[in-house]
Amino acid sequence: MFSTVAVNGEVKRWEDVRLHDFAQGFFFGAGFFTTFRIDGGTPLFLSRHLARLSASVAAYPSTVRAPPPEVMREEAVRDTLRRCLDSDASLGPRFTGVGKLAVSDGKILLTLRPPAPDAERLQREGRTVDSTEPGAYRHGEPTPNHKGLSYFRQYTHMASMPLLANERGHACELPTANLFVLIDGQLVTPPLAAPCLPGIIRQVLLDSGSLNGMHVVEQDLPLARLAEARACVFTNSAVLVTGVTRLLGRNLPDSLSLAERLRAHVLDVASREE
Amino acid sequence: MFSTVAVNGEVKRWEDVRLHDFAQGFFFGAGFFTTFRIDGGTPLFLSRHLARLSASVAAYPSTVRAPPPEVMREEAVRDTLRRCLDSDASLGPRFTGVGKLAVSDGKILLTLRPPAPDAERLQREGRTVDSTEPGAYRHGEPTPNHKGLSYFRQYTHMASMPLLANERGHACELPTANLFVLIDGQLVTPPLAAPCLPGIIRQVLLDSGSLNGMHVVEQDLPLARLAEARACVFTNSAVLVTGVTRLLGRNLPDSLSLAERLRAHVLDVASREE
Repeated sequence: MFSTVAVNGEVKRWEDVRLHDFAQGFFFGAGFFTTFRIDGGTPLFLSRHLARLSASVAAYPSTVRAPPPEVMREEAVRDTLRRCLDSDASLGPRFTGVGKLAVSDGKILLTLRPPAPDAERLQREGRTVDSTEPGAYRHGEPTPNHKGLSYFRQYTHMASMPLLANERGHACELPTANLFVLIDGQLVTPPLAAPCLPGIIRQVLLDSGSLNGMHVVEQDLPLARLAEARACVFTNSAVLVTGVTRLLGRNLPDSLSLAERLRAHVLDVASREE
Repeated sequence: MFSTVAVNGEVKRWEDVRLHDFAQGFFFGAGFFTTFRIDGGTPLFLSRHLARLSASVAAYPSTVRAPPPEVMREEAVRDTLRRCLDSDASLGPRFTGVGKLAVSDGKILLTLRPPAPDAERLQREGRTVDSTEPGAYRHGEPTPNHKGLSYFRQYTHMASMPLLANERGHACELPTANLFVLIDGQLVTPPLAAPCLPGIIRQVLLDSGSLNGMHVVEQDLPLARLAEARACVFTNSAVLVTGVTRLLGRNLPDSLSLAERLRAHVLDVASREE
């Protein structure tokens, strides 16, 4: 993480930020965050990230103190990011990497880090998903619909990246990513009630309605049905789309080309929304 | 909360503690805490609290960085507490209130606050529990067995204090307390797999085996069975034992005297363990 951060729009050194100012976030995980990609100084899908973050804060008005509305506005956050990049020679106005916005205790904290070290390799080679955590979530439970500071359940699974499933044996998501599988010519992703995060890239793909002749749909995904998958990808805001070259023991070589096409679509939408 | 705190045994001002030093605890809720009562300068059941805290840290070695073992030892924490009380005139060596130990990022943070403002009224009048959250937990899920910084699920329920139940419709716990009901002459509390927190006061009562002729046992507690309860209390380390004078619409006047007897037993054990 870089030492330049911002709290409610004020550029600071990370070392100067007090735990005191984020106490409810720390002691009770009472807060939310979002992670977004920055390409050459431009944040991708920033307005979508802020809309989700604001919706999460608004969903828990009595437990998470909201920052002043003006510091959550898109233009204000863009301006804050610009001032962070300009003020730190190790960043610079053309910075490429990952931004994070964390909200708790009436404040919004912007932090920055370099691109994920494995991002390029993941794009080129994809990765395998070979285990499941059945019952990791309960169907309909609301907290996985928010990217919360109480992130421990997902955090404990980050190293092994299993497919998280609910008590019905339906696929939900990966610890830091949404899941899409190509089944019967359709690109299927679990519904929010599975539950899963309403991921930004997930929504960009759903918004398209159909891509290269494939309908993009939300549908319950029993783990047994994954044996029918012709290809599989996962999506998140840092790496965008990653091909799953082996899913629960089955090789899926077509996942890499599917990931490439979806990534191109996502980048195209990003440039149009800019 | 008082301004005097300690980090790894070093007494500090709360305002001087850096978020930087507790980053994984803040960003991912990757850490644990415990809350204990301090009566006239003496912490109650400190060795039990430290044993549970250490067990939680040990259960997640790759996701929560443990503090140096020497700062987690009982004598070290007693000494740290003593130095905090001695160094702050608003505390003093005979301080009565609540201590909290939070562990993340290789550090243990001690903070102090006044007694719960409603503690005396709760002892005198008890309280009512009139709602349930069925499906709040999943049977067997491990995270509620630890008091984690990812506390948001419980935190969102603190104001209304419903009885949290699992997807089988079995009672688990209250947001910040364990549950005991007097049924068929036995004092019954849900098993850890319900799941619930292995609360310190809960364990003190279970350790007794039987109290005033009542066996104290762990048993599945279907919500429907609560209609048979003759009395009900909840337990936690700050208020010890609180009578539930109305449980899901049924008046239980005997709960106050039951709470009083259990509280006397708990204080007796505490003084013997001191």
